[in-house]
Amino acid sequence: MRLALLAHGRFPSGAKTAQGLLRYGDHDIVAVIDRETAGSRVSDHLTDVQDAPIVDTIEAVPEMDVLVVGIAPIGGTFDETWRSDIAGALARGSDVWSGLHQYLRDDEEFAQFAATHDCRIWDVRRPPEDLTVSDGVARDIDATVVLTVGTDCSVGKMTTTMELVEAARDRGLDAGMVPTGQTGVMLDGDGIVIDRVVSDFAAGALERMLLEREHHDYLFVEGQGSIVHPAYSGVTSSILHGTMADALVLCHEAGRDVVHGYESFSLPPVSEIADLYQSLSGALTPCSVVGGALNTAALNTADARKALETYGNAIDAPATDPIRFGIEEVVTAIEERP
Amino acid sequence: MRLALLAHGRFPSGAKTAQGLLRYGDHDIVAVIDRETAGSRVSDHLTDVQDAPIVDTIEAVPEMDVLVVGIAPIGGTFDETWRSDIAGALARGSDVWSGLHQYLRDDEEFAQFAATHDCRIWDVRRPPEDLTVSDGVARDIDATVVLTVGTDCSVGKMTTTMELVEAARDRGLDAGMVPTGQTGVMLDGDGIVIDRVVSDFAAGALERMLLEREHHDYLFVEGQGSIVHPAYSGVTSSILHGTMADALVLCHEAGRDVVHGYESFSLPPVSEIADLYQSLSGALTPCSVVGGALNTAALNTADARKALETYGNAIDAPATDPIRFGIEEVVTAIEERP
Repeated sequence: MRLALLAHGRFPSGAKTAQGLLRYGDHDIVAVIDRETAGSRVSDHLTDVQDAPIVDTIEAVPEMDVLVVGIAPIGGTFDETWRSDIAGALARGSDVWSGLHQYLRDDEEFAQFAATHDCRIWDVRRPPEDLTVSDGVARDIDATVVLTVGTDCSVGKMTTTMELVEAARDRGLDAGMVPTGQTGVMLDGDGIVIDRVVSDFAAGALERMLLEREHHDYLFVEGQGSIVHPAYSGVTSSILHGTMADALVLCHEAGRDVVHGYESFSLPPVSEIADLYQSLSGALTPCSVVGGALNTAALNTADARKALETYGNAIDAPATDPIRFGIEEVVTAIEERP
Repeated sequence: MRLALLAHGRFPSGAKTAQGLLRYGDHDIVAVIDRETAGSRVSDHLTDVQDAPIVDTIEAVPEMDVLVVGIAPIGGTFDETWRSDIAGALARGSDVWSGLHQYLRDDEEFAQFAATHDCRIWDVRRPPEDLTVSDGVARDIDATVVLTVGTDCSVGKMTTTMELVEAARDRGLDAGMVPTGQTGVMLDGDGIVIDRVVSDFAAGALERMLLEREHHDYLFVEGQGSIVHPAYSGVTSSILHGTMADALVLCHEAGRDVVHGYESFSLPPVSEIADLYQSLSGALTPCSVVGGALNTAALNTADARKALETYGNAIDAPATDPIRFGIEEVVTAIEERP
């Protein structure tokens, strides 16, 4: 399929979904729509991903099958300045995929366009209607279950999960992914966006996804938020205890010392955060942090190496920047864990 | 108002909402409906609460204004054997209050009866539609905020919260309650049932309730679930970090050593659970466990005293059974905290 990615004003750093589809998706990206960087190309901003032109409106996008809302603002609300692009895509007969909290299918204009032009609006965040509370059985499944957890939002949990799956498969391991966020679900084509699930059912939703995928030998679960996040720790706890992972991989961004978007909150030392995750998860089932993933994009290579050493020592586990140095050590730690 | 309480097969121990309304409500309870204990009276089962007859069906209830679904089964689903009682109440022109996950207003028969007989179905668990993510400002409010937390579900968090509010008011303190569960919201007449809120907005819902009530000097927040509960820890974390309490009161039931309804999960020692709550909450804002509430109903007085001493030592704070011995010590600890 041919995808266009809507990312107004926020490409690339504020457009996690767009980045994820460019880096890991099986689909052809025919354009990014961003009125601020329009005229440049994806390759001017990102390396090691698909290249595509950046244009200012839907009218400038070549032939396409799907328009993806590739931005995930805090709160997940719709921006009215995107209306003409989304309406324009539907009018061209393209599907629309959106990970916003605000469902586009509930918008009268969009619903009518979709009906008229026989195209589909996929609100990725809309959960199944038959979710229930967890039965607490995730710890009994046979697969080795690895969960990526983080010190904060946007520190690389989805990226690390994808890299772990790819590296494990490259070794010939039977590895599956359990997506929990809008980008992961778009990449997988299936799954439940946990932050949108009713609190009482969030752990149960995780458990359901694990049971559906337990035929794999290894399951890599995409984590969300952080256990020390003022707004999202509930999502994180639900995933942690819904997963009952055998092993955790702690993700962090070098230099991040306050909570993104909540800058009056200092982050505790990473060693404390690692301990908290282990204690919380370990209260239900044996679990340890077996590796660390550090985003070192802002550092030169020498500083990145130093930061990785410090980080690995703090969490007492092998640490890497998966994009920069690969994730082999962490996969080995997972394979060889006692 | 005159209330009848539906509690089929589960009165009194499995009917938390019924018990809460009998003990703390301002309303007259005209009957409990329970086909198993029908013929006895409330006073045959519970002490220090309103007395009322127990009857087998709605037909046997005297004049009333509201039928309350006073049971909260795991998962919060509707039991079809209750249909005739609920339909019967509506047919008599009574309102119906329900704390079930499954909304009674969405049931066609009930909706039609309610319309025909001009009465109201209040699905207490239905959250407001305009909730958002937390802004992380709860720690800035002036009131002293006290949160009841628990080692498990059904260990007395709601009861302890109500007792704290009453004891504080008896001392002349300006104390408000922040309800977070169906019983608390029914007692208060207002509030948001957190376990029903979309995960991403749960901490924000708590924050909103705190801001609405910050004119009080003391706010007592009703906690939910437990941070080590396999299904509900997400709800607990959202409340913990949405509240950013100054002080925690840890609730427990004497002798409980496995998770209720999830008996294959052992409870960690209470000292570990207390530490976990303090570490998690303390990661965002200074916070300590200032008291403990222990349900000792199953013990004789001497054993209860012993259990309280052991419990207080384990959590390093004054401990009491609020129903049996009052909660003065804990209120004092809250007033005198540094």
